Amino acid sequence: MLNFFEEIRDDLTYIELELKKTVAEFSSVINVAAEHLFNAGGKRLRPAFSLFSGRFGRYEVEKVAPLAVSLELIHMATLVHDDIVDGASVRRGRSTVQALWGNQTAIRTGDSLFAKAIEKVSGYDDPLVSRQLAKTCMNVCTGEFAQAKACFNPRQTLRGYFGRIRSKTAVLIAAACELGAVVCGAPRLVSRSLGQYGLAVGMAFQVVDDVLDIIADERVLGKATGGDIREGIATLPVLYVLDRGEKRRRLQEIICAREKDEGQIGEAIAIVKQEGGVSYSLEVAGRFAGRARSALRVLPDIPPRRHLDAIAEFVVARKF
Amino acid sequence: MLNFFEEIRDDLTYIELELKKTVAEFSSVINVAAEHLFNAGGKRLRPAFSLFSGRFGRYEVEKVAPLAVSLELIHMATLVHDDIVDGASVRRGRSTVQALWGNQTAIRTGDSLFAKAIEKVSGYDDPLVSRQLAKTCMNVCTGEFAQAKACFNPRQTLRGYFGRIRSKTAVLIAAACELGAVVCGAPRLVSRSLGQYGLAVGMAFQVVDDVLDIIADERVLGKATGGDIREGIATLPVLYVLDRGEKRRRLQEIICAREKDEGQIGEAIAIVKQEGGVSYSLEVAGRFAGRARSALRVLPDIPPRRHLDAIAEFVVARKF
Repeated sequence: MLNFFEEIRDDLTYIELELKKTVAEFSSVINVAAEHLFNAGGKRLRPAFSLFSGRFGRYEVEKVAPLAVSLELIHMATLVHDDIVDGASVRRGRSTVQALWGNQTAIRTGDSLFAKAIEKVSGYDDPLVSRQLAKTCMNVCTGEFAQAKACFNPRQTLRGYFGRIRSKTAVLIAAACELGAVVCGAPRLVSRSLGQYGLAVGMAFQVVDDVLDIIADERVLGKATGGDIREGIATLPVLYVLDRGEKRRRLQEIICAREKDEGQIGEAIAIVKQEGGVSYSLEVAGRFAGRARSALRVLPDIPPRRHLDAIAEFVVARKF
Repeated sequence: MLNFFEEIRDDLTYIELELKKTVAEFSSVINVAAEHLFNAGGKRLRPAFSLFSGRFGRYEVEKVAPLAVSLELIHMATLVHDDIVDGASVRRGRSTVQALWGNQTAIRTGDSLFAKAIEKVSGYDDPLVSRQLAKTCMNVCTGEFAQAKACFNPRQTLRGYFGRIRSKTAVLIAAACELGAVVCGAPRLVSRSLGQYGLAVGMAFQVVDDVLDIIADERVLGKATGGDIREGIATLPVLYVLDRGEKRRRLQEIICAREKDEGQIGEAIAIVKQEGGVSYSLEVAGRFAGRARSALRVLPDIPPRRHLDAIAEFVVARKF
């Protein structure tokens, strides 16, 4: 993905500094925890989408910055609260906030990041920005919760899965794309199309993420493979096999078991791969990516359009 | 307090219905948890302040409603996250969300209430409303955290205490007063003065709350007396005695002990009462109330001004 990022490298560096400054505004323990999250890095995907989208309007990095920072803070806030809910001690190869400083700090850190994100974005004069972002946050919260409810529950539909990843991932990327254009004063038709692009690319991204959780190299992933299976979360590759695979009963047994050993997780991964769960899911991701690329067609043919097009292609092909 | 509320009874009922509708918008478990919080009731103090303040502008209850609902949702969100941090199983005589449905639901419920609050308030065209409320939320988050850090720590200053209760309680009441006027288009001088009133009355309110935690009748309070002492939280009455009381060493010993029995808590309460902690704190609360009443003087002399004046007086005299 770094190739496309090259195009916006200086502006991403600017955003990174703004994010660092924002994190420094927190006091005491929240600041330490927030810096820990900040230093863990990440792809800064949401800011990058906003920067590309902004170029469809009267682009200035300073106009996009509060939005980009806000999106990344919301993303960090959801990660830190997710890690409490999952009882996760490691993320991206680093200890989680609640593993290091306990639940209390993790709850307060998530709350503070969220509040700070809303504060950042409230500086825009167009009320649409706050309004859209607030709706997005509501959506993200309900999505995370839907995922939690679906754990260890085999009676799930594809529809339920798509609804969950939409709320959990795609709506925030859609907001990044749409609002990046809005804050730079792009016409409504342009920002809406970018929102549609973001939603579809976000869906593709999450489906691939769920595939990588099953097939990726652990060293590249920064966490153990099969994490979702371990936690009883049935993602698309698993749901596909649960619906029609020959060994669906055995797979269901493993997914729904509260306690499972590494051998069972390895067995489940093998079943999912053998019975076509991975290839089916990559096909679905490819379809979402295609939908994303179609949404770009109504946009003016300027360089950022080609970059966004290439990102949609890359999202499906990536190995990390 | 019910006498003043009589004046705005119909409008409070309207807000209550709006709040009920908003809570119904949540899905599944969040909805159940949010209804549990809603049904627990509460004084609806923040909405009431907004309704009174709105009357200094071109008042319509529909204009104030999204703000009032939002303030109450933020208040509920902080309560549910506080209860996780405190490990509290009972609040206002009812089981807490995390006692009934666990940490995960409590975290998600708080997040969702918060997101919904921001969504509600983002509907106003004046960006000042979102902006001010976002700042208030940041303040509330840091205040709760400061309190948590101060637990079991005897080296606290009065300044630290006032800073904490300012963030934890007063800023949200100040926002209720100020923004109630803003959303009804009152002049800036008027809304600012109402904000000053709210800040001072909020300080008085929290000081009295901390006094009641020590002296109130448990049946009226809905929870055990001496809760703060039990949790190692040194509030104003305790800090006063820790600073100058004859038995300050013994009091400090009890406050800082991680484990304490009912006898020790009773002993601490007796020390605080005997050594003037309660009367000093009520005097301080009286001074804040006086400051609140002064802030009203620049406002037009219409009936809501007299009600707000009476509320400031009542806050200090109340027994619950």
